[in-house]
Amino acid sequence: MAKLITLGEILIEFNALSLGPLRHVNYFEKHVAGSEANYCVAFIKQGNECGIIAKVGDDEFGYNAIEWLRGQGVDVSHMKIDSSAPTGIFFIQRHYPVPFKSESIYYRKGSAGSKLSPEDVDEEYVKSADLVHSSGITLAISSTAKEAVYKAFEIASNRSFDTNIRLKLWSAEEAKREILKLLSKFHLKFLITDTDDSKIILGESDPDKAAKAFSDYAEIIVMKLGPKGAIVYYDGKKYYSSGYQVPVEDVTGAGDALGGTFLSLYYKGFEIEKALDYAIVASTLNVMIRGDQENLPTTKDIETFLREMKK
Amino acid sequence: MAKLITLGEILIEFNALSLGPLRHVNYFEKHVAGSEANYCVAFIKQGNECGIIAKVGDDEFGYNAIEWLRGQGVDVSHMKIDSSAPTGIFFIQRHYPVPFKSESIYYRKGSAGSKLSPEDVDEEYVKSADLVHSSGITLAISSTAKEAVYKAFEIASNRSFDTNIRLKLWSAEEAKREILKLLSKFHLKFLITDTDDSKIILGESDPDKAAKAFSDYAEIIVMKLGPKGAIVYYDGKKYYSSGYQVPVEDVTGAGDALGGTFLSLYYKGFEIEKALDYAIVASTLNVMIRGDQENLPTTKDIETFLREMKK
Amino acid sequence: MAKLITLGEILIEFNALSLGPLRHVNYFEKHVAGSEANYCVAFIKQGNECGIIAKVGDDEFGYNAIEWLRGQGVDVSHMKIDSSAPTGIFFIQRHYPVPFKSESIYYRKGSAGSKLSPEDVDEEYVKSADLVHSSGITLAISSTAKEAVYKAFEIASNRSFDTNIRLKLWSAEEAKREILKLLSKFHLKFLITDTDDSKIILGESDPDKAAKAFSDYAEIIVMKLGPKGAIVYYDGKKYYSSGYQVPVEDVTGAGDALGGTFLSLYYKGFEIEKALDYAIVASTLNVMIRGDQENLPTTKDIETFLREMKK
Amino acid sequence: MAKLITLGEILIEFNALSLGPLRHVNYFEKHVAGSEANYCVAFIKQGNECGIIAKVGDDEFGYNAIEWLRGQGVDVSHMKIDSSAPTGIFFIQRHYPVPFKSESIYYRKGSAGSKLSPEDVDEEYVKSADLVHSSGITLAISSTAKEAVYKAFEIASNRSFDTNIRLKLWSAEEAKREILKLLSKFHLKFLITDTDDSKIILGESDPDKAAKAFSDYAEIIVMKLGPKGAIVYYDGKKYYSSGYQVPVEDVTGAGDALGGTFLSLYYKGFEIEKALDYAIVASTLNVMIRGDQENLPTTKDIETFLREMKK
Amino acid sequence: MAKLITLGEILIEFNALSLGPLRHVNYFEKHVAGSEANYCVAFIKQGNECGIIAKVGDDEFGYNAIEWLRGQGVDVSHMKIDSSAPTGIFFIQRHYPVPFKSESIYYRKGSAGSKLSPEDVDEEYVKSADLVHSSGITLAISSTAKEAVYKAFEIASNRSFDTNIRLKLWSAEEAKREILKLLSKFHLKFLITDTDDSKIILGESDPDKAAKAFSDYAEIIVMKLGPKGAIVYYDGKKYYSSGYQVPVEDVTGAGDALGGTFLSLYYKGFEIEKALDYAIVASTLNVMIRGDQENLPTTKDIETFLREMKK
Amino acid sequence: MAKLITLGEILIEFNALSLGPLRHVNYFEKHVAGSEANYCVAFIKQGNECGIIAKVGDDEFGYNAIEWLRGQGVDVSHMKIDSSAPTGIFFIQRHYPVPFKSESIYYRKGSAGSKLSPEDVDEEYVKSADLVHSSGITLAISSTAKEAVYKAFEIASNRSFDTNIRLKLWSAEEAKREILKLLSKFHLKFLITDTDDSKIILGESDPDKAAKAFSDYAEIIVMKLGPKGAIVYYDGKKYYSSGYQVPVEDVTGAGDALGGTFLSLYYKGFEIEKALDYAIVASTLNVMIRGDQENLPTTKDIETFLREMKK
Repeated sequence: MAKLITLGEILIEFNALSLGPLRHVNYFEKHVAGSEANYCVAFIKQGNECGIIAKVGDDEFGYNAIEWLRGQGVDVSHMKIDSSAPTGIFFIQRHYPVPFKSESIYYRKGSAGSKLSPEDVDEEYVKSADLVHSSGITLAISSTAKEAVYKAFEIASNRSFDTNIRLKLWSAEEAKREILKLLSKFHLKFLITDTDDSKIILGESDPDKAAKAFSDYAEIIVMKLGPKGAIVYYDGKKYYSSGYQVPVEDVTGAGDALGGTFLSLYYKGFEIEKALDYAIVASTLNVMIRGDQENLPTTKDIETFLREMKK
Repeated sequence: MAKLITLGEILIEFNALSLGPLRHVNYFEKHVAGSEANYCVAFIKQGNECGIIAKVGDDEFGYNAIEWLRGQGVDVSHMKIDSSAPTGIFFIQRHYPVPFKSESIYYRKGSAGSKLSPEDVDEEYVKSADLVHSSGITLAISSTAKEAVYKAFEIASNRSFDTNIRLKLWSAEEAKREILKLLSKFHLKFLITDTDDSKIILGESDPDKAAKAFSDYAEIIVMKLGPKGAIVYYDGKKYYSSGYQVPVEDVTGAGDALGGTFLSLYYKGFEIEKALDYAIVASTLNVMIRGDQENLPTTKDIETFLREMKK
Repeated sequence: MAKLITLGEILIEFNALSLGPLRHVNYFEKHVAGSEANYCVAFIKQGNECGIIAKVGDDEFGYNAIEWLRGQGVDVSHMKIDSSAPTGIFFIQRHYPVPFKSESIYYRKGSAGSKLSPEDVDEEYVKSADLVHSSGITLAISSTAKEAVYKAFEIASNRSFDTNIRLKLWSAEEAKREILKLLSKFHLKFLITDTDDSKIILGESDPDKAAKAFSDYAEIIVMKLGPKGAIVYYDGKKYYSSGYQVPVEDVTGAGDALGGTFLSLYYKGFEIEKALDYAIVASTLNVMIRGDQENLPTTKDIETFLREMKK
Repeated sequence: MAKLITLGEILIEFNALSLGPLRHVNYFEKHVAGSEANYCVAFIKQGNECGIIAKVGDDEFGYNAIEWLRGQGVDVSHMKIDSSAPTGIFFIQRHYPVPFKSESIYYRKGSAGSKLSPEDVDEEYVKSADLVHSSGITLAISSTAKEAVYKAFEIASNRSFDTNIRLKLWSAEEAKREILKLLSKFHLKFLITDTDDSKIILGESDPDKAAKAFSDYAEIIVMKLGPKGAIVYYDGKKYYSSGYQVPVEDVTGAGDALGGTFLSLYYKGFEIEKALDYAIVASTLNVMIRGDQENLPTTKDIETFLREMKK
Repeated sequence: MAKLITLGEILIEFNALSLGPLRHVNYFEKHVAGSEANYCVAFIKQGNECGIIAKVGDDEFGYNAIEWLRGQGVDVSHMKIDSSAPTGIFFIQRHYPVPFKSESIYYRKGSAGSKLSPEDVDEEYVKSADLVHSSGITLAISSTAKEAVYKAFEIASNRSFDTNIRLKLWSAEEAKREILKLLSKFHLKFLITDTDDSKIILGESDPDKAAKAFSDYAEIIVMKLGPKGAIVYYDGKKYYSSGYQVPVEDVTGAGDALGGTFLSLYYKGFEIEKALDYAIVASTLNVMIRGDQENLPTTKDIETFLREMKK
Repeated sequence: MAKLITLGEILIEFNALSLGPLRHVNYFEKHVAGSEANYCVAFIKQGNECGIIAKVGDDEFGYNAIEWLRGQGVDVSHMKIDSSAPTGIFFIQRHYPVPFKSESIYYRKGSAGSKLSPEDVDEEYVKSADLVHSSGITLAISSTAKEAVYKAFEIASNRSFDTNIRLKLWSAEEAKREILKLLSKFHLKFLITDTDDSKIILGESDPDKAAKAFSDYAEIIVMKLGPKGAIVYYDGKKYYSSGYQVPVEDVTGAGDALGGTFLSLYYKGFEIEKALDYAIVASTLNVMIRGDQENLPTTKDIETFLREMKK
C-alpha cells in the first residue's frame, strides 16, 4: 500500500442548489473540498493511504473538515487547528453565465488554511510518504504556505504537482513566475496540468508542445482536456483517453478526481494507459454531482462503469 | 373494457434524492412500486381495468400501498393484509457507478408480499380476467408465491409473463430453470423480456434468435432494448420501434411501463405496431422521473407526445 | 439610455418542482412572471430603462410583484393596485406529456391584471418612452386591456408587439382577427413572433413567407424558432442565429428573454445581427432554470457566455 | 356500518412551506382539502362509510382530488367532472400576522365546485345515507350549490350542518340570513358551530346562550372553542372536553376533523361524551401538520393517544 | 412622512436550515441582513421613508443586497459598490448549544461594508433626514466606518443609536470606550440597548439603574429584555411592555425589528407606550422565521395581531 | 483518558421529514444510529475514548456507518463487515399518534448486526477498556449477540448496561427473563433504566422502589424519567435532576445521550450529581433534532447551555 502526503488548504464548499446567478439562489449545500483533500480521498479510494498537512480554524467548519476527512480514511494526524483565523470557505455558482461551467467565490483571504507554514511540515512524516503532492493553489494562498511546499518537496523522494491556476488568487504573471520557479528547483515525478494553465505558464496551449516543454521538469505529465478527456505523456510516449457524455451537475473538483485516481492506480502497479482510462471515469462521475469527494469511485466501481458503459 | 389480473409483490420504494453512492445520499423519496403493480396502473391508464392479487404487511407501508393503488383505480379487493411480516421495501441508487442506470437495494426477504400463496388465488376472480400476468420476480420471491402463479396460470384463459430476472433474488441458474419450467407448462399469449434475460434463459442475446427460440412458448414476444426501444415478434413478423433521447432521472420501472401499456392497447384493439409505438412513449416518460407510476401516460397524453415530438 | 414602456399582466408563477402531471407534483416554487414584465427586466439588464403599466390585486401576490420588479430596477410608478380582484396566477407543468415543453394552467380570469383599461394609460408617461411594447396576451385578457393597448399605441412614437398567442385565453379565430386588426391600425417598429403564431395569423408557417407577409405591418421582424434559434428580417435582409444545446428546466419565458434582450441591444446601438446573437444567449440561459427573470443576463454575462461557448 | 353523504366543494390546497406573509414564501405544498371532503375522510377513519357529491374541473387538480379521495376510501361515484370551469384552489398563509392562526386565499370564484346544482343530487343515492351533511361554505359558493343542499336536505332522513362562515365568500349579513333560513326550514340532527359564527348568526357569542338559541333548530349541538376544546349540548345536557397543548403547524381543517370524527363515533354507538373526547384528539393531531386529512386518526390511534397522553 | 437615514454594513445571511452545530448542518438559506438595513425596512413598514448609507462588494451578494432593499422600498441611492473587497457574510447556528438562542459566524473582516468612510457621507443627504441612526456594530467594523458615523452624527439634527455590542467584533473594553466616547460627544434622541450591553458599557445590568445612567446621553431610552419584552424611559417616566410566547425559529434581528418599528411609530405620532406595544409585536413576529426582514409587519398587521392575540 | 467499549447493532435511521403516519410522509432523512453507537459518541464528546464491537453488511449502509463513526472519533477497528446479510435499518414516525413521542419501524431481522457473536469479541481488546457497555437491545437481536455480551462481560473489569427494552424485538416475558439472568450473573457498575422497563423487569414502576430492587445488581443506577429528567442512585443516596422545556423534534436516542454523557463525565472525575446535571443537557439537546448523534454536546457546550439557561 503506497502512501501519499498532500499539502494544501481544506475549504468548506457552499454549492448553489439551483442554477444561475447567486443573487437568485436561495439554498446552498455544504461539502468539504479543497484540491489537495480531493486528491487525498481519490488516492485512498483506490486502496492506498493518504495523509494531509493542513490547517483549519477552531470553528465548526474546521471540525467539519477533520471529521469528514477522518471518516473518509484520511490520516488527519497532521492537520492542525489554528485558532487565530477562520476556516476558509467558498461558494459555487453553477452553469451561469456559461453552461456546463462553475464559478468559485472565495472567502479564504487570511484563512487558517493560508497560515500553513514550514513549521507544520514534519520531516519524519514527509519522509514516510512514497509521494508528496501539492498544487498552484497552495503556492498562491500565502508565502508561508508556499514555503511549506518548498520544505516538503525538499524532503520528499517523489513529488507531484497540479498547476491548478486560480486567477482569483494571483495574477497570471505571478502564477507563471512562481510555478516555473518551483519546477526549476524540484524535478517532479508527476505534473498534472491543462491547456489553460500551460498557456499561462509556457505561453503554449497546444497539448503536445506544452507537454514537450514541461518534460524538462517532470517524468510523467497528465494534460487534462476537460470534457474531452486527457492525455498522458511519459517515456517519450503519449496516450489519449477520451471523456464520456454525462449530465453535468458541477465540474468543480473533476481535475482532482482525475489526478488523485491516476496517481493511486500508478502506485497500484497499473499500466499508465489503464490508469488514465480509469482516472477519466473518476472525473466523469465527479461532474455528475455537487460535492467534490462524494462520487469518487473505488477501483471496483470504475470497473463496473467501464463494463457497463462499454466505452 | 378488458380486465387484467396481476400477481406479485407490491413494494415501497425509497428513491435517492441525489445521485451517487447511497452512503452519501441524505434524503429519500417514497413511492409505491413493484413490477406487477406498475403493469396494473399502466394497463388502467389506457382505459382498461386491472386487479392485483398481493399481500402487504399490517403496517403504514402496507396501507400506503393499498390507498395509493386504490386511488390509481386498481381493484384492490384481492389484496390481503398479512400481519405476520412487514411490507417489502427497497432503495434506489441512481446513476452510480454507472450513469443512466439505477441499482435496487432490497429489504424484502420474508416480507408479507413473499407470503403470497395459492390460497390467495380466488378461482372465480381469476376467471373473470381477460388476461393474467406475472413475472420472474414473483417466481423468485418464495415457493408459495411461485405456486400462486402456477395456480393462477392454470385457471387463466390467457397468460402474460415478464421474465424480469433480478439476480439479487435468485441465481442465473435458478432463474433459467424456473422460467423454462413455467414456459414449458403454460403457453403464453404474451412474453415480455429483454436481451440480458434472454442470454440467461436461452444463452442467446441476439434479439431475433432469442425471439425465435421463445416463439415456441409464446404467441407475442416483446423484446425490450433499453434506451434503443423495443421489438415485437408475432405471426412470424417483427416490428422495431426506436426510443427517444430524454434526460434520465431513474430507469426503474421503464420496462413495466412499456409492457403494461402495450398489453392494454392490444386489448383496446390497437394494431400491434401502433401499440408498441405508444408503449415506447410510456417507457420514455417513465425514465424522466423518480417513481414508477406517476408518469404513466393516458392514451391521450401519448398522442400529444407523438404529435409534438414528431418522431 | 433608452426607455421602454410595456403594458400587460404581471402573474405569479407556481412552477412544479418535479416533472410530470401536476396531480403528482407535491411542491411548487413561486416566481414573478408575465410576458411584458419579462420583456421589461430583459430590457433593463442590457443597461436601458423600463416601466410597466399594469394592475395587481391588493394582496400578498400583488405586493410580491411590485417589490420584486422594483428590486429588478423596473419603474413601478404606473403599476396600480385594484382591490376588486385578485392578482392573476398560473401553474407550470414541466416536460409532460411532451419532454422539453411546459404547460401553463391559468387562474387569471377576472384578475386584477385583466382590469387594465385606457384610464390606466397616462399620456405623458407613454410619450416619455422611446418604445411601447405589448403582446397578444394583453389583447386576449379583456376588452379594456385591449383598449389600453390601443390607447398606448396611438400615443407611442415607436411600437413593438409580440404575437404570443395563448389558445387557453382565446380561440385561434379571435387571435387572428384581433391581431390583424391591431397590425392594420398601427405600423410597428418591431414584430416578434414564431411559426405557430404565423400559421394562426397568416395561415403560413414557413418563416420566410410569413415574414414577407408580416413586412407590410412591421419594420423589423423577429421570427423565433424555439431550440433552433431565431431569424430576424429587416431592410429586405435576413439573418439566422442558431440555438445552443443545454439542459432544459423550463422553456416558459424564453421568447420574452429573446425579445426583450434584442430590443434593448438594438437601442444600445448594436448591429441587428449581433443583437440577435446576444438575444439567443439570453433565451438559452432562460430555459436552464425555473422562473422567467432570474437568469436574464447582462450584456457582460452574454459576452462571457459567447467567449467560453465559442459558438 | 353507517353511511354519510356530504355535499360541498373539494379544493386543492397550497400550503406555505414557511411562515410569514406569502410574498416572502417561496415554496408551497399541495394537499386535497375542502370542508365536506375533510368530514368524509374523518368519518371513514372511524370505520364508517362516506360518499361525496361534488364537482371538480377536467384538469390535473380535479383528477388529483378524485384519486386522493378514492385512495382514502371515499365513495367518489357521485363526484362529477365539469369541463367548463377549473377546480377551485386556495393558498394558506401560516402564523402571520397572528401566531397560531392561518389565513386562506381563495381562487375558487366560478370554479367547477361552485357549479354543483340540484341535478347533481341523485335522490336514490341520498336516501341510502344515514346522515347527510353540508356547511355554510356550500351555501355561500353559488346559488345552485345552495339549492343542491336544499334538495339533499329535503330527501335526507337525518341532517348535519357545520356553519363554517367564511367572510371572504359572503358578508356576515348574507351568512346570517341564509343560515337562519336553512335552519328554519330543516330540523337538524347535528349542528356544528363555534362562537364566532354564533355571534354572526345569533348575535350571541356566549356558548351556552348560543347553544340554547340553536337548540330550536338542532338536536345535538357541537360548539367548537378552538384550542380550548369544545362543548356538546344535547338532551338539555352539556359536556365540555378540553384541548391539548401541542405545536401548531396549521389550524386549517381542525374543526372538520372534530366534526367528522364526532359524527362517525356517534354512529358507532359511542356515548356522546366519549365521542367528543375522541373527536378533540382528531382535531389536536390535525393542527400538528400541514394538510387537512393526512393526520386524521383511526379510533385505535385516538385510543393510543389518550392512553399515552393521560389527559 | 418622516425620513430616516441609517449607516451600517449590509450582510448576506446564511441561516442553518436545521438546528444544531453547523458541522452537521447541510443546507443554508440566504437572506439579506445587517442591523441598520433591518432598522430601515422596519421603519418603512410603518409608512415612513428610509435611506441607507452603506457599501457592498461588486459581486452577486452585493447586487443581491441592493435589489432586495430597493424592492423593500429602501432608498438605495447612497449605497456604493466597492470593487476592492467582497460583500460581508455570516452564518447562523440556531438553538445550539443554547435553545432559543442563535450564534453568528462572521466572514466580514476587510469586507466592502467595512470600507465605509466619511467620504461616503453626503452632507446634503444626511440633512434631509429627520433622524440619523447607527449602531455599535458600525463603530466596531473599522475606523473609517466609525468616522463616517461621527460625520453623519455631526450633521444630523436628531440621532438614534443602538448599542448592539458584538464581542466577536471588538473586546468589551473597546466597546465600552468607543460607545461612551460617542455618547459623550453627541446627545441622542434615541438610545436602544439591552441589559447585557448596559453591563458592558456602564457595569450595570439593572434596567432602571442603567437607564438612569444613560439618561445623561439620550432623551428616550429603549431597554430590550429579550423574550420578556422591553421598557422605554422618557421624561422621567417608565413603561414596560411584555413579550409574547411564540415558537422561536431564529432570534437574530429581533432587536432591530423592535427598534426600527418603535422609531417609525414615534414619528407617526404614536404615544410612546403604544409605539412600544406595537414594536414588541414586530419583534415577536421576527423570531418566528429565519430571515431578519421578511416578517416585519405593517401597522395594520400589528393591529390584527393585537386584536386577535388580546394581549 | 478513559476508554469505553460497547457491543451492539449499528443501524441506519430513516427519519420522517414531516410529522404524522408514515403512509403520508414522502421524504426521509438518513442518519447513523443504534443505542451503543450513540453511547460511544456521547462518551467521546466529553473527552474520553470509545470503541465499538459490531457488524455491518457489505453494503452502502454498512460503509456509511463505518465512515460516520470513524469521523466522529469512534475506534472502528473492531467493526466487522458481514457480507451474508444486510445492514439493519429503521424508520421513525414522529409525533403520531402520540405528540412528543416517536415510533420505530425496524427492518433488522436477520441483519448483519444481529450476526454479532462471541468470535467477534477480542479478549485483549475488551481488557483494554475501563468500562464495557451493552443493552437489552443486543440481548434481544439474536442468541449469538447475547452470547457476545456474556463473553465481553465475563472479561470486563467494569460493566454498564442499559435495559432499553424494545417490545418489537422480544416479549415482555423474554425481556424480563433475559435481563434478570444477565443481572444475576454479572454485577454492574452502572445500570441505566427507566420506569417502563422497571415495570417489566421488576413489576415495579415507582423509581425509588425499583432502584432499591436494582441495587442488588448494580453500584450506580440511573433512572430516566423522560421529559421530567432523571434520578441517580448510588451509595444509598439519591439525586434528582429535572429536565428542560424545549421544542421536541424527535426523542429517539435521548436516553443514550443521557447515559453516554453521564458515564463519560463520571470517568472524567465529575461528582455524580454534576455528571447527571450535565447529562440531562445532552439529552435535552438531543430531542431538538432528528438524528441521534449530531446534537451530542461537548462538555464546553453543556457549560454554555447551563450558564445561559440559568436552570
